Amino acid sequence: MSFIEVKPDSDFSIHNIPFGIISTAQNATLRVATRIGDYAVDLLALAQAGLFSSVHGLNDPQAVFSQPTLNLFMSLGKPTWTATRKHIQKLLSASEATLRDNQELLQRAVIPVSSAKTHLPANIGDYTDFYASKEHATNVGIMFRGKENALMPNWTHLPVGYHGRASSVVVSGTELKRPHGQRVVVKGEAPEYGPSLRLDCELEMGFLVGTGNNLGEPITINNAKDHMFGVVLLNDWSARDIQAWEYVPLGPFLGKNFGTTISAWVVTMDALEPFLVNGPTQDPKPMAYLAENTASAYDINLEIKLKPAEGSKYTVISRSNLKYMYWSFAQQLAHHTVNGCNMRTGDICGSGTISGPTEDSFGSLLELTWSGAKDIQLEDGITRKFMKDNDEMILAGWCEKDGIRVGFGECHGKILPANK
Amino acid sequence: MSFIEVKPDSDFSIHNIPFGIISTAQNATLRVATRIGDYAVDLLALAQAGLFSSVHGLNDPQAVFSQPTLNLFMSLGKPTWTATRKHIQKLLSASEATLRDNQELLQRAVIPVSSAKTHLPANIGDYTDFYASKEHATNVGIMFRGKENALMPNWTHLPVGYHGRASSVVVSGTELKRPHGQRVVVKGEAPEYGPSLRLDCELEMGFLVGTGNNLGEPITINNAKDHMFGVVLLNDWSARDIQAWEYVPLGPFLGKNFGTTISAWVVTMDALEPFLVNGPTQDPKPMAYLAENTASAYDINLEIKLKPAEGSKYTVISRSNLKYMYWSFAQQLAHHTVNGCNMRTGDICGSGTISGPTEDSFGSLLELTWSGAKDIQLEDGITRKFMKDNDEMILAGWCEKDGIRVGFGECHGKILPANK
Ligand SMILES: [Ca+2]
Ligand SMILES: [Ca+2]
Ligand SMILES: [Mg+2]
Ligand SMILES: [Mg+2]
Ligand code: NI
Repeated sequence: MSFIEVKPDSDFSIHNIPFGIISTAQNATLRVATRIGDYAVDLLALAQAGLFSSVHGLNDPQAVFSQPTLNLFMSLGKPTWTATRKHIQKLLSASEATLRDNQELLQRAVIPVSSAKTHLPANIGDYTDFYASKEHATNVGIMFRGKENALMPNWTHLPVGYHGRASSVVVSGTELKRPHGQRVVVKGEAPEYGPSLRLDCELEMGFLVGTGNNLGEPITINNAKDHMFGVVLLNDWSARDIQAWEYVPLGPFLGKNFGTTISAWVVTMDALEPFLVNGPTQDPKPMAYLAENTASAYDINLEIKLKPAEGSKYTVISRSNLKYMYWSFAQQLAHHTVNGCNMRTGDICGSGTISGPTEDSFGSLLELTWSGAKDIQLEDGITRKFMKDNDEMILAGWCEKDGIRVGFGECHGKILPANK
Repeated sequence: MSFIEVKPDSDFSIHNIPFGIISTAQNATLRVATRIGDYAVDLLALAQAGLFSSVHGLNDPQAVFSQPTLNLFMSLGKPTWTATRKHIQKLLSASEATLRDNQELLQRAVIPVSSAKTHLPANIGDYTDFYASKEHATNVGIMFRGKENALMPNWTHLPVGYHGRASSVVVSGTELKRPHGQRVVVKGEAPEYGPSLRLDCELEMGFLVGTGNNLGEPITINNAKDHMFGVVLLNDWSARDIQAWEYVPLGPFLGKNFGTTISAWVVTMDALEPFLVNGPTQDPKPMAYLAENTASAYDINLEIKLKPAEGSKYTVISRSNLKYMYWSFAQQLAHHTVNGCNMRTGDICGSGTISGPTEDSFGSLLELTWSGAKDIQLEDGITRKFMKDNDEMILAGWCEKDGIRVGFGECHGKILPANK
């Protein structure tokens, strides 16, 4: 229990203690914060007050928490992340007087979230997007290539992934313009230039690499989890018409790189540990470098909520769960580095669209409307196939077990009209 | 003419004046330099001596040239790049006494290249690889998918490209380990794990983005060239067996991201201007956003040289030219941003393998050996199909016209044995 009020349905109980970057109207400097209930807690202010003097490995807390990204903190390694989070939990607990009884510091450091602006939590060197949900890969495969060729022969042998664009990863709340590009409007005819007519979302989660590896030195499957700092929600916006025309033979490019939205608060692997479960059975048995002997999936409830431009309410259009993901995060990281590829602090790996087994758990409009063949029903009789201008979307995610709730807040985006 | 000796066949005449990053045994600090003949010229030392006091836009030359990358310099924009290069040309010219007659400064600032270590010239935010040679795309298409499906329908409509891995871009001279991975050894059988058996090169050039664009604001074809800082040689090392197994449907990944080598000296667009020529005729006519009305190809001679582990000499195994590239650099940049994707200072765009029309001008071992069907003949009766352990390769490139030579030095790599 914290001395700060946390509503029962809050994503940000004292069991969470995520990390993020904030600024405020009073202080425009970007700095590190955590969140509890409806408050951001300014960790730089706590460090300046000397409250981090005793945390193992956190030798210069003011330097670390005055950074505009989490990169320096993440580079300190797992024992320091763990010790810092535990220390913050102690500082925020009802039984601890240090912060609780320091009114002046509370005033400065505990900020209503409505008064704090959140920023991209990391300087992202490289962004990789996996394709690790069997249901999603199968659904998209059927639509793009037909039932016979839905799942490629490699899919059950390795976590298929591709490189995304790091520059256009943006934080929740960023508005994105509808992209222009080449797309085939009438099947079989020549491509035309214009705004995307099939603008879609992808419900994903991503892990942030905390500590990397040197070029040529793979991260083993057993060490993989200790290199991960935490997890965010990720919306891999996708212009399906642009993607369909461009993606052969080298993969998605302009259909994706106009923007990818991540949630602002990075939930640590430590906070997610209680929600580990066994993932789907893997057949064939993974090769040795991908073989795991402990639970490595996470039971994280996921939702997509859509608010149409002409409406006033969000409708939940999909309910999924990260536990449906076939290839675990650890398998993704071991595979990514098995050839010696180097990861760096701040790199992000998206899971790929997390579709569940039922039609109401699909993670993209493409799947929910079966490529536009059917409508999604929203409140007030409004319908959608793809995103219209000024539509807004929220991805949400949370874990719940034994009365404990740990969640991700929201990953929000709004689609603005295309450039004239 | 410079007062510093430049041999007639040097890539680094006074007409070049490239930019790079060096350190020396005496001074381990990374700093900005240019190169002339067989000398690196320490621009920080010149700045400290007050020799850049009058260059337009270069307001703090010591700060700019004391950076460990070119990013700050590149961010200053084209007029400043142009003015700085012209100023250096003047400082190095035989008729100019300032540097020529300052023995003490010459001693400090003009360093034999054998005494200077070169480093990665830029902090690369994102690396994109295009596929802009029609000959290469056709050759590879025939080998991977058969003659009927060689060139995909989109290829003549847009410059196909995909995202590469920025973290593993390394500077010339870096040794790379042979990657492990999944690959199908016997056609039709299950994949096996092991070191790549078909390790290949790709002869490419890449342009460095000098100034970028905001998300949502495309760079137009007419402005594209002014956003480019300069060009390097680029070897897109490729593990063909890993690539062939993994690349459907989302493109190359571990077959590429174990390492990409670029040359150390960035040759500016200004230096390349005299070598502009018309590129291949484009049919169909490009869409308006890709339409150019001036010469936009560069006449740059390219070579691949291979030295086998058991030999002592390099053999030239391919002679190509950048002018064969179907889609120009300007078209690549305009296409890359047409959807609003943001480029940042230091981003690099590779051309894709530059294959010419004849068999001796192909830009990869895959093509030169026609997927391993024939041998490449090296000196002393040695042959190769793909790279063996401890083989070394050099890519070279240079322009020549009216007695003026501007070149790129070398892009060197050595393949070390795989991890045990
Ligand atoms: Ca995706
Ligand atoms: Ca390539
Ligand atoms: Mg995206
Ligand atoms: Mg490469
Ligand atoms: Ni990057």
